[in-house]
Formats: sequence, C-alpha cells, structure tokens
Amino acid sequence: MIERIAILGTGLLGTSAGLALRAAGFRGSIVGWNRSPEQAQLAHSMGAIDAVAGDAVEAAQASQVTVLAVPIYATLDLMEKLAVALGPEHLVTDVGSTKKLIAETAARLFNTPERAAFLPGHPMAGKERGGAALADSNLFRGAVWLFTDDPLSRRSARGAELVQEWRRLVVAMGARTLDLDAARHDELVAWVSHLPQFTATALSALLEAEVGDAPELKDVGGRALREMTRLGASPYSMWRDIAYTNTEAVERAIAALEQRLAHLRENLRTPGLREEFEQANKFRRD
Amino acid sequence: MIERIAILGTGLLGTSAGLALRAAGFRGSIVGWNRSPEQAQLAHSMGAIDAVAGDAVEAAQASQVTVLAVPIYATLDLMEKLAVALGPEHLVTDVGSTKKLIAETAARLFNTPERAAFLPGHPMAGKERGGAALADSNLFRGAVWLFTDDPLSRRSARGAELVQEWRRLVVAMGARTLDLDAARHDELVAWVSHLPQFTATALSALLEAEVGDAPELKDVGGRALREMTRLGASPYSMWRDIAYTNTEAVERAIAALEQRLAHLRENLRTPGLREEFEQANKFRRD
Repeated sequence: MIERIAILGTGLLGTSAGLALRAAGFRGSIVGWNRSPEQAQLAHSMGAIDAVAGDAVEAAQASQVTVLAVPIYATLDLMEKLAVALGPEHLVTDVGSTKKLIAETAARLFNTPERAAFLPGHPMAGKERGGAALADSNLFRGAVWLFTDDPLSRRSARGAELVQEWRRLVVAMGARTLDLDAARHDELVAWVSHLPQFTATALSALLEAEVGDAPELKDVGGRALREMTRLGASPYSMWRDIAYTNTEAVERAIAALEQRLAHLRENLRTPGLREEFEQANKFRRD
Repeated sequence: MIERIAILGTGLLGTSAGLALRAAGFRGSIVGWNRSPEQAQLAHSMGAIDAVAGDAVEAAQASQVTVLAVPIYATLDLMEKLAVALGPEHLVTDVGSTKKLIAETAARLFNTPERAAFLPGHPMAGKERGGAALADSNLFRGAVWLFTDDPLSRRSARGAELVQEWRRLVVAMGARTLDLDAARHDELVAWVSHLPQFTATALSALLEAEVGDAPELKDVGGRALREMTRLGASPYSMWRDIAYTNTEAVERAIAALEQRLAHLRENLRTPGLREEFEQANKFRRD
C-alpha cells in the first residue's frame, strides 16, 4: 500500500490533490514541495500536505508515489532529475496538459525493471486562475482523469502495483479515468480544451480593444458574455507551455475555427446559417 | 397609472416579464397573446398573465401599455398593425435584440401627438433556450435594460407619462436602464452579445464535426468546454432575425475575431502570445 506521497508543485492542482486525497480517506503521509515556499506553506496551512519539503528530489526519494503538478517544462526537468534518483520501488505520475512529450520522456527515462515507474496523467479539471488559495477537495469530482500509459512499458512488478494503487486513489478522489494514446490525447485536447481557451483569449482581447474603454458596456453582455470570456482570465504562465508543446494540433484547431467563422459570416443571410445552428445544437444535445 | 398591460408573445421574455411585473407588485391586469395559444395557456397557468387574448390588436386596444415580445420581423409586423389601431393614450414598447430598424419604424409610425407612443427597449437577459416553460420572475434582476428612445419624438403628454411609468416598472423588475442611440446600440450588441453567440455556434458546430462521433470525449472538456459551447444550444429561430437586421455590424465583429485568432495562431511560440493573454486578462480585470 502507498504510505507516503510527495506532491511537487502545490499550486491549484497539487494542493487540490492533497485535499482530495485526504477527503478520499488516504491515511498515509503527504509531503509537499514548491519552488516558492509560500505556496507550500499555504498548502500546509490548508491541510493539503503534512509537511513542507526543502528539496524536491529528497521528498520523492522518501515517498512511494510522486505527483508532478508543475507546468510542462518544469515537469520535464523534474523527470530528468528523478529518473537518476529513484528506483523500481517508486512511481512518478504527473498532471500535465499535454502528454506526447512527457510520454516520450517517460519511455526514455522510466518504466524499465531497474527504474522508477512513470504514469502520464491529466486530470481535466482546473480554474481560470491558479494558486493554492483556490484549491478545492472537490476539484476532481465528476471530472475525467486521463492516462496515456505505454502498453509496452517494462516496469517492475512493484511499479505496476503502485500504478494500480494510484489509479484507485484517483477514482477515490471522485474522478473517472479514461485511457488513451498520448498522440491522440494531444489532438483531442487541442479541440476540447486548448481551442476553447485560445478562443476565449482571442475574444476577450478583441473585446478589450473594442469596448474596454467603457466598462459599463461589459455589463450589457450579461451571463452569455461573462461565460464566453471567463477563460480570458487564464494566465499566460499556465498556457505558454501548452502552446509550445502542442503547437501543430492547436494551430490546426484554431485555423479550422477561423474557417468556420468565415463560413458563418458569409452565410448570415442564407440557409447556411440554419445549418450551422443545427450542427451546433446537435453538439449540445447528445 | 398603468392599469392594464398586454404582452404580445408569451415566450421566455414575455412570460418572464409577466412574472416579474407581478413580483414587482404591479396590481393591474395583464393580458397575454401568443401566435400558438398553448404558450399563452402555459403563461396563464404559471400566473404570468391573467387572461389569454384571442386577438393581438384588440388586446392592445384594451390596454395602456403593450409589450411586444416576439422576434424582430414579427415585431415590425405588429408595429404596422398597432400604429393604425391605437391612439395617443397608448404606449407600445418592445424587447427586440436589434434596434435600428425598430427605431426607424417607430419614428415613421408612432410618437406624434395623434398617435401611440413607442419606446424601443432591449433587456439584456435570456437563456439559450426559449419558451414560456423556462420563464423566471428573476430573469431581469441585475440585467441591463437598454432603451433607444428618440430624443426628438413628439409624443402626446399621456404617451410621455406612460413612458416614465413603464421605465419605473422596468426598474421595479430588478433591471438597470441604460439609454443609447439605436445605431450605437446595434454596433455595441454586435460585439458584446451577437459575437459571443456566433462564436459559440461556430465552435460548437466545429466540435460536432470533429469529435461529435465520440460523445464520451465531450466530457473530457469539463466546465470550460461546457461554458464555451452552452450558447451552441441557441435556436436558429431566435437568431435569424438578428443576423438579418444587424448583418454589417455582425460581419465586422466576426471578421475581427477571425483576424485575432489568426494572429494568436501565428504567435503560439512568440512573445505575441503573452500580449494576447495580458490583453484578455485586462478585459476580465476591469
């Protein structure tokens, strides 16, 4: 059984995972580390972790499971460091929003009989603003937690056991797990996650340029405008790594939306508009 | 004082207005008419209206204030009929989403000392689905109710009085009123209301084409996807008239978003992405 978990990165997701593990009845210890110690102290004061670790690698060495809850490039950095510091009695998993690069790195550095196991994961949960202060023990309830495991991995028996135990904890946190190929994952999230975000960013930036000088006019839009621009508050720091590590799929998705908008614009007074609304209605009906 | 109000069109907005007038303490009678009598019967059974009228014009003749709560072209039709049936002791107002055509028609047919008064109105409230069944006495609470009145109108003293009384009732329903020029109104709502709707429609239609065959994948997107596509459920019947009566402003807004998306797409790996996120953040911060 898992007795000790290290959470590296106690922002929104890491701190929420700590709280959710506690709410799910996990009785082992949870140690947290964060680049800026204040966030780790905050996670500690919220009861998400039992102790603040001074060193990420040492915290991982002292735990059976290490959860990487930092941006993609920071995740890749930590994978390099942990690969040489951990052995087959350890599992490392992550919560990164793109998976191809991480799964490739996992295949290169982990998942042999002599090395630590690595399970690439991606909980489809978040908020438009990050940070431990917004963490929530229910963040993963009802959410889908994606895994892009390598079916050919040659991990140790202990590593395989830890993978099963971590999957059970994820379900205990209230999430539904779904397994898919890493490349397919990145294509899929380009459509259902990254495109909605970049659309909200472009729409919000455009509206700031067009009506931003008249704040009272923002109220005019009501709920529809608020919803369509809520993600406009998402920070660049969270999305930069996603844009860098899933560039081609995101480019394709955005270009497709540009074309779809042009088609709709050219058909505002033709039966084509009805078809677009019916197609859109269908997406919401299923 | 207003003793009798006719609501022509007992869909979502008309029925909600009836419920909101009652909740605001309006003690006069409210008669409702609808093209399909079942919606009027439903509004009656919900307590939004006291009686179902068989004829729209007769209902208006028997009331001091008539509220047109039907799509734009139906509003224009009723304006033609009511202009010859009503006199200076009547006020007609509407809730249409575009105002230039309605304000022009009002200037041509109403607002002289011998004719009925007309006050073009537009409550910024609604839901992604229409119909009396979804009506809500709180629909207008906290919403902005726009008016695009003509400052040069030569309406009767009684008409001017009724305008003031209706404005007070709108405030009593929980809305904030805001006055602006009809042309400016149509430009503004193209940005803050029509563009968000058409963006959600295009995004939903695109996603239906791309991932619609795998319903389980829609869950993957979580709250962000749900919010960004909620308006995808909006019916064509509600938006066709808007597309027809505000075509140029909507075309400009959609074309601007296409350009903004293209700019973002071309800058996924440059500092331009940071600028877009910062501009978007600014829209949400104010």
